Amino acid sequence: MIRTAVPVSNRRSRKTAARRREILRGAAAAFREHGIQGAGMREIAEAADLSPANLYYYFASRDEILFFCQDDALDRMLAAVREARSRHDSHAERLRAVIEVQVLCMLQDLEGGAAHLEVDLLPKSLRARIVAKRDRYEREIRAIVRAGVRARELVDCDVALVTRAILGAVNWTARWYAPQGPKPPAAIARAFSDYLVRGLIR
Amino acid sequence: MIRTAVPVSNRRSRKTAARRREILRGAAAAFREHGIQGAGMREIAEAADLSPANLYYYFASRDEILFFCQDDALDRMLAAVREARSRHDSHAERLRAVIEVQVLCMLQDLEGGAAHLEVDLLPKSLRARIVAKRDRYEREIRAIVRAGVRARELVDCDVALVTRAILGAVNWTARWYAPQGPKPPAAIARAFSDYLVRGLIR
Repeated sequence: MIRTAVPVSNRRSRKTAARRREILRGAAAAFREHGIQGAGMREIAEAADLSPANLYYYFASRDEILFFCQDDALDRMLAAVREARSRHDSHAERLRAVIEVQVLCMLQDLEGGAAHLEVDLLPKSLRARIVAKRDRYEREIRAIVRAGVRARELVDCDVALVTRAILGAVNWTARWYAPQGPKPPAAIARAFSDYLVRGLIR
Repeated sequence: MIRTAVPVSNRRSRKTAARRREILRGAAAAFREHGIQGAGMREIAEAADLSPANLYYYFASRDEILFFCQDDALDRMLAAVREARSRHDSHAERLRAVIEVQVLCMLQDLEGGAAHLEVDLLPKSLRARIVAKRDRYEREIRAIVRAGVRARELVDCDVALVTRAILGAVNWTARWYAPQGPKPPAAIARAFSDYLVRGLIR
């Protein structure tokens, strides 16, 4: 069984979720060293500085870690969409805020590891849930761009293709980002949102 | 031994290169069906409608196919940079032309297969050659953007990060493109170059 929806009202569950995110950062090191497919629970426990028994308390399998990693990031990205809608009236501002959160989701948890994106490594049933959530996120971004075009705040464009260009630019950061590189995630988030929104402003 | 640099002055070699590209398109089907790691020479020969012996005449191994795929695309992308420099004075036009060729390279040969990008699947010695060529391409794009910024034709921006956003958006097309989808590669190339260059024009 995969443990996913942690009720946020529950303080203990929130602590568990926070602990699971910490483990994820440890797992990132194992993924980088051994490859996502090569890192087993033993390597992940070692990299996260946990006993295997302790790791199994939080995650039943490597698949569960991979699922949590992708699912949790998507949840935060979808939350960012809701927040952007309530906080900003301008579609450009909404888009800018959402792009920044997505860059941070890509680069912070796994320090740019590609585990976020390796949906094909998940077992089929879990994969379907991630793909559905990812599609929902893409629809949300498309809706922001489309609304901005309709309101004549953003330039007329192929909304679906522009959305994919944005998502591609952001997703690809996970492929090149290096924690020891010259730019921290926040600077990358800012540069990306500036550039990617600028191409749409009238 | 990996056969790479085909002297273009030689008509027979040109024919060989063309034949090898045809085989690549066949290999794309095998890669899609069996995965890049799962497709062996037998599956590739079958998908390319060749006898294994005939396939071995053109490629000594699956690694050689993967190398040719990436190397050939990079050669054409670098040729596009040279052509853009000689044909256009405007940096924006140069960038637009280069982005369009890169999208076409991504989407045409392998119909969007990710084989272009899976540099990590290559044996180490071949990988180093591709990484060097890919870095050269990235430097060329960066140089176009930087020259445009210096000439005050393009907006002041973080040249390295904008270059990576562009390359990411384009590379990611290989992940979502479907040959049976609604947009042909040329339309995607145009939409991408419009959007990605627009974000830089003053």
